[in-house]
Amino acid sequence: MHSAAPDMVQLRFDEIEALCRSVLRNHGLSRDHVEAVTRTILAAERDECASHGVYRLIVCAATLAKGAVVPDAVPEIDDPAPAIVRVDARGGYAQLAFERALPLLVEKARTSGIAALAINNCVHFAALWPEVEAVVDHGLVALACTPSHAWVAPAGGSKGLFGTNPLAFGWPRPGPFPFVFDFATSAVARGEIELHRRAGTPIPIGWAVDEDGKPTIDPAAALEGAMLTFGGHKGSALAAMIELIAGPLIGDLTSAESMEADAGRGGSPLGGELIVAIDPRGFLGQNVAHHLERAEKLFEGMTAQGARLPSSRRFAARQRSLARGGVCIKRSLLEDLERLRIAIQPNGASIEGEGSVNQAAPDSVT
Amino acid sequence: MHSAAPDMVQLRFDEIEALCRSVLRNHGLSRDHVEAVTRTILAAERDECASHGVYRLIVCAATLAKGAVVPDAVPEIDDPAPAIVRVDARGGYAQLAFERALPLLVEKARTSGIAALAINNCVHFAALWPEVEAVVDHGLVALACTPSHAWVAPAGGSKGLFGTNPLAFGWPRPGPFPFVFDFATSAVARGEIELHRRAGTPIPIGWAVDEDGKPTIDPAAALEGAMLTFGGHKGSALAAMIELIAGPLIGDLTSAESMEADAGRGGSPLGGELIVAIDPRGFLGQNVAHHLERAEKLFEGMTAQGARLPSSRRFAARQRSLARGGVCIKRSLLEDLERLRIAIQPNGASIEGEGSVNQAAPDSVT
Repeated sequence: MHSAAPDMVQLRFDEIEALCRSVLRNHGLSRDHVEAVTRTILAAERDECASHGVYRLIVCAATLAKGAVVPDAVPEIDDPAPAIVRVDARGGYAQLAFERALPLLVEKARTSGIAALAINNCVHFAALWPEVEAVVDHGLVALACTPSHAWVAPAGGSKGLFGTNPLAFGWPRPGPFPFVFDFATSAVARGEIELHRRAGTPIPIGWAVDEDGKPTIDPAAALEGAMLTFGGHKGSALAAMIELIAGPLIGDLTSAESMEADAGRGGSPLGGELIVAIDPRGFLGQNVAHHLERAEKLFEGMTAQGARLPSSRRFAARQRSLARGGVCIKRSLLEDLERLRIAIQPNGASIEGEGSVNQAAPDSVT
Repeated sequence: MHSAAPDMVQLRFDEIEALCRSVLRNHGLSRDHVEAVTRTILAAERDECASHGVYRLIVCAATLAKGAVVPDAVPEIDDPAPAIVRVDARGGYAQLAFERALPLLVEKARTSGIAALAINNCVHFAALWPEVEAVVDHGLVALACTPSHAWVAPAGGSKGLFGTNPLAFGWPRPGPFPFVFDFATSAVARGEIELHRRAGTPIPIGWAVDEDGKPTIDPAAALEGAMLTFGGHKGSALAAMIELIAGPLIGDLTSAESMEADAGRGGSPLGGELIVAIDPRGFLGQNVAHHLERAEKLFEGMTAQGARLPSSRRFAARQRSLARGGVCIKRSLLEDLERLRIAIQPNGASIEGEGSVNQAAPDSVT
């Protein structure tokens, strides 16, 4: 552990891992879950997605303390149709269920050309890009989405019904990084409004409405009211699609049902996630390399005119982190986390409020 | 044929069909294509989507006259993987290729749980909702997308690279109408800007940039420059995804390649289309009815707070048209079409300019 800027601390990757493991184990999470969650948190921290990095340990600790996640759930894989995989997370975190089901999803996509994985009955706290990238690592095209809690009003409405419903997509590329995007279908992440509330600064019109359905610039009124989707009725249509295909289609909760199930505990969203994997060879046979090369021209056409590829900031951060073998985190956050690795907190909710780290990164889901 | 408003003419469905058939046959389209295209045009006219109704006969006639579509192409179906169908439209209109390949797509979705259809090497002129609805009619969930011509700049750029790249989705419902959306990932349909140019009215900021990449309210400058995506970088990411999955993934053209292939002829976009079909039974087995019922609660949650379901205006129009057994079209348009049914036009392009019908409906693709 070395000091960087006065309020920042530099940690090696193995130190981050050790921190994750001790906090999570200390809060009763079983060994396999600890490893899967640690991998996700480390990936986010490495990519400088502060909102999904070690900060999430505070959220996980609180969720575990509340009993809002099953700490030792053993995922159960089901094989209901040739191109479908279901994995029942049995109330545990999504990560382990995903890791366990991934090999079968990959196998089915390769055999059938396209396949879908439903993760059911899981607790979400992470972004979707780690899962999309894990699928793309196998040379497949990936699409993932999930509902959350009913915080977002449909276009033309004023009451929370949809979740922040992220959609993520990944495409394999020859270089070190795939083409990946992962965005909430809400205008902004919920944490972004929360940050404005803490800072006492107004939010832009278009992010949310108040309890009476009127546009508001008051973040507190926005959190009491409803968030809005991005892109008006089109973003709203996408959010509805995600409710349907990662909800009833896979036999799992809508965002409204997730919120109802949470019953005011303030836990992470519950429910399902849909991941679709497509093998380019299913369409292209032996011509995959040729057509992937054509896709590169599309990316060149974007960057040549100054448009940034989605996730490029994240990949730049990854390169920096990998080069120095670690990351920098806020000293105050590390101090909070050090306390969490020592003793089980009786009420995680009170700790959550003390977190001083930026909750709102561009890839933030909720 | 009965008169309605002075400038409108009421036509029965069989009269619309006869009109379509005679215009299309008269321009050399083979019988099977005539029937498939007629069904699509009739469906659009019935739903009061003026831009994709009989007005499109003028566009088709021009495209046929230019030789920009193969009038007697025989679609060729390929079965490359258990959950993949490809149909080579061989330069013909997409409709017939889709109709021919649909049964195999449905069969594969039912067997595998999820399946994908690539239409390759086709000419597009219609919206995507007819195809999505045709899949949904089989009790399946459907997703469809296609590139077009490179008119739309990526977020952060200023040059046309993406097409208007529509995305359509359909979900089966117990009543007469499914849940369907079909929107361009550009801020507006291209025809909408064209309409403003004809009317000499400014366009809103956010629709397009001029040739120098500057925001413009001048529709002529916008048509020379580049359109913008809806929803900023998120809409742009979606447009890129559609370029990839309905372009290189299926071995077909990107919007930039389509425009290049058109070589300034002003023809309809060429290339491919991707349609994904999911059988809810693949995930839900015998519990489909129960979970589809839960989806109805989502729709109730939307309408109860005054939010309109996507396509509800179109479905209301369909009910009206079906009740009266026909539609109303502009007299001036009918006169143009009557001329097209009599003699082959030596140059369809000149006729196109005379069309006085509204080109820009909400579902308009280009």
